Amino acid sequence: MTFTRERVIRFSDCDPAGIVFYPQYFVMFNALVEDWIDALDIGYRKLIIERRVGLPTVHLKADFRAVSRMGDRVTLALAVERVGSRSITLALQCHGADGVRMAMQQVLVTTSLETHHAIEIPADLRAALRAQ
Amino acid sequence: MTFTRERVIRFSDCDPAGIVFYPQYFVMFNALVEDWIDALDIGYRKLIIERRVGLPTVHLKADFRAVSRMGDRVTLALAVERVGSRSITLALQCHGADGVRMAMQQVLVTTSLETHHAIEIPADLRAALRAQ
Amino acid sequence: MTFTRERVIRFSDCDPAGIVFYPQYFVMFNALVEDWIDALDIGYRKLIIERRVGLPTVHLKADFRAVSRMGDRVTLALAVERVGSRSITLALQCHGADGVRMAMQQVLVTTSLETHHAIEIPADLRAALRAQ
Amino acid sequence: MTFTRERVIRFSDCDPAGIVFYPQYFVMFNALVEDWIDALDIGYRKLIIERRVGLPTVHLKADFRAVSRMGDRVTLALAVERVGSRSITLALQCHGADGVRMAMQQVLVTTSLETHHAIEIPADLRAALRAQ
Repeated sequence: MTFTRERVIRFSDCDPAGIVFYPQYFVMFNALVEDWIDALDIGYRKLIIERRVGLPTVHLKADFRAVSRMGDRVTLALAVERVGSRSITLALQCHGADGVRMAMQQVLVTTSLETHHAIEIPADLRAALRAQ
Repeated sequence: MTFTRERVIRFSDCDPAGIVFYPQYFVMFNALVEDWIDALDIGYRKLIIERRVGLPTVHLKADFRAVSRMGDRVTLALAVERVGSRSITLALQCHGADGVRMAMQQVLVTTSLETHHAIEIPADLRAALRAQ
Repeated sequence: MTFTRERVIRFSDCDPAGIVFYPQYFVMFNALVEDWIDALDIGYRKLIIERRVGLPTVHLKADFRAVSRMGDRVTLALAVERVGSRSITLALQCHGADGVRMAMQQVLVTTSLETHHAIEIPADLRAALRAQ
Repeated sequence: MTFTRERVIRFSDCDPAGIVFYPQYFVMFNALVEDWIDALDIGYRKLIIERRVGLPTVHLKADFRAVSRMGDRVTLALAVERVGSRSITLALQCHGADGVRMAMQQVLVTTSLETHHAIEIPADLRAALRAQ
């Protein structure tokens, strides 16, 4: 199961070299995770703001294979690789017309936003991850 | 004639106070101007990259009336107030469910990206502005 | 009394036109306000996080007069124009070797970060503003 | 040999959870690389803008071990792990009072900014890397 969204590369995503400034890929993928959590019917805002459950990144590995330029229409794709007791491992990709431009593996943990310590994945999120 | 686009307020748009970090409104409106130039059939990427015509801001005035929070669905609206020989004055607004959150007037000039000096508005852009 | 800080224009501040992406001026000035509140011995972090007093912008006017490029060393300057009961009006400038590149007037209000409503300027901040 | 710079965590670096939004670490490290290239007497601006040599990231691995909060004074550290014919592998760390908050390994390649293809590391940069 892969969750995807289209996105246009914006002027503000690009650097003086005219291509995506690489930290912007992580900003784009963060928005993709928000949309995915919404699509799981958990609600990203509700999770973070009301329930005070954080989803910080503890580890990531990324490969940048081809450049993306302003105006490019890209597809951002997310798949779940592994669900642990307190962590979710995602495989994320940015595709352009010419294939994969950037691929990353990202490990998120569920945390309490009061303590910033890891907590068990909430039951409803775990169920939604299983059901997808 | 008002050009509008919907946008969700992202985690990355917000600050430790939990509301939109105000410079992000300008980033959002920059994307709106890109979409508008595309909708005018001029092509923002083509204008900037191929024709080397810039659209920098020379003046702006902004009022921040109400806060926007993560997850809010807002409408960004753009209207042309005035077209000069080398400048375009825009009225921009961000609306939420409760009314206008932020309103600004922005004066853009057309420039040569070789010299960063103002140039006449290109004829096709002027015609498109008139036709809308 | 003018409060100043030097800053180098970074790669990440610049856009595909090779010059400062204008919302970045506001990010730079936000850091200047942080340093200024610290220099007033109020402590920006303490104000925002511990005392839950916000300093959102309610109005700004900005003129962009000359471009700043990557690697430019600029001076950011802040002066207080007016102190109201719940607002502070600042005059901010970014100077380069060739003079003023950007100037803005910004009205901040003191707010409760619980309600996002305006509150009286805290007494110690008011005293510090008077003393400077 | 380790190259270090101090940095204060800014309001604009932080997210609604009150901690550094993780892509901002990459923005901070990008500024560190700029300062390092300047310290090597190569000149980052000169390299990118005049000589049109890019330094894009092709691979990175990052661990996020502890949170950084607004107002924290952190030390950013850079060490060269390996110099290839067209690539430079860096070890980067962000330290706070309590130890390492974030560590990453980043592989940069030297590219032509005309073609975005990898090129040999320029001789003066290679000599400077050897001499340090």
